[in-house]
Amino acid sequence: MDDPLTIAGREFGSRLIMGTGGASNLAVLERALIASGTELTTVAIRRVDASGGGGVLDLLRRLGIEPLPNTAGCRTAAEAVLTARLAREALGTNWIKLEVVADERTLLPDPVELLDAARQLVDDGFVVLPYTNDDPVLALRLEEAGCAAVMPLGSPIGTGLGIRNPHNIELIVARSSVPVVLDAGVGTASDAALAMELGCSAVLLATAVTRAEDPERMAAAMRAAVDAGRLARTAGRIPKRFWAQASSPGI
Amino acid sequence: MDDPLTIAGREFGSRLIMGTGGASNLAVLERALIASGTELTTVAIRRVDASGGGGVLDLLRRLGIEPLPNTAGCRTAAEAVLTARLAREALGTNWIKLEVVADERTLLPDPVELLDAARQLVDDGFVVLPYTNDDPVLALRLEEAGCAAVMPLGSPIGTGLGIRNPHNIELIVARSSVPVVLDAGVGTASDAALAMELGCSAVLLATAVTRAEDPERMAAAMRAAVDAGRLARTAGRIPKRFWAQASSPGI
Amino acid sequence: MDDPLTIAGREFGSRLIMGTGGASNLAVLERALIASGTELTTVAIRRVDASGGGGVLDLLRRLGIEPLPNTAGCRTAAEAVLTARLAREALGTNWIKLEVVADERTLLPDPVELLDAARQLVDDGFVVLPYTNDDPVLALRLEEAGCAAVMPLGSPIGTGLGIRNPHNIELIVARSSVPVVLDAGVGTASDAALAMELGCSAVLLATAVTRAEDPERMAAAMRAAVDAGRLARTAGRIPKRFWAQASSPGI
Amino acid sequence: MDDPLTIAGREFGSRLIMGTGGASNLAVLERALIASGTELTTVAIRRVDASGGGGVLDLLRRLGIEPLPNTAGCRTAAEAVLTARLAREALGTNWIKLEVVADERTLLPDPVELLDAARQLVDDGFVVLPYTNDDPVLALRLEEAGCAAVMPLGSPIGTGLGIRNPHNIELIVARSSVPVVLDAGVGTASDAALAMELGCSAVLLATAVTRAEDPERMAAAMRAAVDAGRLARTAGRIPKRFWAQASSPGI
Repeated sequence: MDDPLTIAGREFGSRLIMGTGGASNLAVLERALIASGTELTTVAIRRVDASGGGGVLDLLRRLGIEPLPNTAGCRTAAEAVLTARLAREALGTNWIKLEVVADERTLLPDPVELLDAARQLVDDGFVVLPYTNDDPVLALRLEEAGCAAVMPLGSPIGTGLGIRNPHNIELIVARSSVPVVLDAGVGTASDAALAMELGCSAVLLATAVTRAEDPERMAAAMRAAVDAGRLARTAGRIPKRFWAQASSPGI
Repeated sequence: MDDPLTIAGREFGSRLIMGTGGASNLAVLERALIASGTELTTVAIRRVDASGGGGVLDLLRRLGIEPLPNTAGCRTAAEAVLTARLAREALGTNWIKLEVVADERTLLPDPVELLDAARQLVDDGFVVLPYTNDDPVLALRLEEAGCAAVMPLGSPIGTGLGIRNPHNIELIVARSSVPVVLDAGVGTASDAALAMELGCSAVLLATAVTRAEDPERMAAAMRAAVDAGRLARTAGRIPKRFWAQASSPGI
Repeated sequence: MDDPLTIAGREFGSRLIMGTGGASNLAVLERALIASGTELTTVAIRRVDASGGGGVLDLLRRLGIEPLPNTAGCRTAAEAVLTARLAREALGTNWIKLEVVADERTLLPDPVELLDAARQLVDDGFVVLPYTNDDPVLALRLEEAGCAAVMPLGSPIGTGLGIRNPHNIELIVARSSVPVVLDAGVGTASDAALAMELGCSAVLLATAVTRAEDPERMAAAMRAAVDAGRLARTAGRIPKRFWAQASSPGI
Repeated sequence: MDDPLTIAGREFGSRLIMGTGGASNLAVLERALIASGTELTTVAIRRVDASGGGGVLDLLRRLGIEPLPNTAGCRTAAEAVLTARLAREALGTNWIKLEVVADERTLLPDPVELLDAARQLVDDGFVVLPYTNDDPVLALRLEEAGCAAVMPLGSPIGTGLGIRNPHNIELIVARSSVPVVLDAGVGTASDAALAMELGCSAVLLATAVTRAEDPERMAAAMRAAVDAGRLARTAGRIPKRFWAQASSPGI
């Protein structure tokens, strides 16, 4: 498809960004990543450290997938900034998926700490991709802070509740001049298609695939769904009507 | 994909059934049909008659797509049965998409006339694919009458309102032993994906493609969406949760 | 409220019709009926017969509530017609809530048997109030058959799923010249309010009250909700907007 | 109803808080306020100043309704704090509805400025009632800052879109130990009832009433809806079921 995703001047053929969390083992993850067609995949830096270098990074290298370090598990701006710097050194990339969550039960972003961290990291030369809630104001503030994309949630991480508030996603898309990536909450393929139809530029997901009964098959589903939603958005859908309309007269 | 749709003992590689109504001209329709990957496409018999043989039929023949005559425009069982017989003679097929609508404003099926027509046509040796509302009881009655599939609407024809009542579609799927085909109401790709996720075996649509701004592109979207939904259904999605769940611990 | 419900020329001050099924005992039912403010309450004829005359009927008489016999449990037109006639003799009323359900799992109406029974009962001089699915065509057919009201479901009996398909209720209301009564599926107060806002003339419910933890309190909730929805419908709500609008300038 | 709303130790018999914006004239507003049964009503301080003392304040005094000054129109913490102090002097109350909006198109709160202002005002001895978005984290931060209630929106001000994200409202209620007041977005009665069913302690609305075709009638609708929702919440609704359940056996 000649319709690349462009973030910070860099092009990707796939609009599906994958996460690696939740996979039961590396072999399953490998098959899922291949089936997804992804070219960009997040890696939790803390997890990489713990495992002493990381089978996941080796896997991504082998598959030719760009790793996108994230700051999962960070609860303050200071922690996130530190983690991002460690990631830059360890992986040799200045791209960072910025996560600063407030608590374990909701895993929702802390808006103040997130914005603070984003500003510091932009100043420090990072390409910052922040995981945010679906507040259109915070999305705008993150863009103003210099983030290369904004990544609002559909619903809290791991809930599989899909896009709880399509109106907010539409508001974010309507006012954003950087790519909007739907991040978190996707449970099934139609959620991913809907995200794209609402005008998102890409979808980021992890457990919807890694914890599905058949991760490889679900990865293929998400790949097709993202394509479908993108095509539908750009094809110009029919309007919604209250009363029926016959397909005839036609040819 | 090695997961064919089987209706009345016959296999189809594609789970997207197309309609031809609403296309602005044959060239546009041809590109859309090719992009959709469909192997089965409905043709309005009354329209075919009027046009003296039908460019649409020639087109389908050339593309190797099986024509499925329908009884669009019929308002009574008697009319529909007569039209089906004319179709059988004209096209040499005993397959019929049965439509008996009650009025022009809603284009909703008349349940009594529809069931009556279905019984007559089954008795007469037809393979009957009835367009029905989303009433789980009527769907069961049509199956009991010997229909080869049941084709409930998502919403009225041409409205693009998607699946207004997913619960009814789930009830129909739960009790049906013939294929359930979502017919009517699809407006965009996520609607088609959702239909498959709810357990439908296929999706039938026309104006969502033929009246889109770019029919060819929307046909490609629908093809991908049907694949996505089917894959997601069979991949076993994650459960929905009220509280968040971190993707870690994982590998 | 000077806005009576009129069915078949008869006026009711309350737009909440109650059912008696599901109550744990007569004392609880009595308190709930009083709290509901209802003036019309359904009674299952089969249950009345079985209990040898019926404490429920005595209760309604004492409370000055009009009993509305129903044909709950009937599966065919013949059965329903017979039950209606028994009810007429036993209760001295020609009003009948007509129920002809297809099966126990869904308790959904059988459209063909229902319409058949409605026609027979109208011919026999009954004031027929049919419990129907939310199919706009069947609703119209029942009205054409001479029914005094149509009573579409919001969702299947006892599910508490509310109004699954508001679009269908709106279509029914838009074309009906007899009162539309939302019957079945109400789970909580906002469901009842929504029914009235969609244009229904009244709401009929039973287990949402009788099986609530506190039936008397829920009956009061439903009474207020029906009032609220009716007032809102007739007050003319503000339009929905995509963008915000400040309440100023004002006075 | 012996179920008062308690905010900062003060009891209110009504759970409906009104706003005055959008009314066409004082006579209409008066009738609507009376019909609403409200005991607490917001007043925009800037508007009061402009009108040189304010007919609205006189009206509230005459009706025995407590005025709740708000900081509508403020865009920064500094502005809001200044406005709150002016209000305290002018009206002799240390209660303040805190609004700090980010822009005119969405009228959504600016999370950072809002939290900053809340902290300053709590420190300064105010009883702070902040209008916030529906982010469960921000709601918690506002509570931690010492706010006496949190007032999340259902949807942006004046849109009438109702509660776009019931899940977020439920998350806020589940973790809040101060009253949660649904503020903004209500369009019709069922929206207000739903807010209460989700666990909100009160509802605040203005234009849904003041800009309805018949404001007095809509005020009565909202009063009944808030009662209905509160009663339903405390009555314990029936669970939702996939399959039907007959109301019999019962008494």
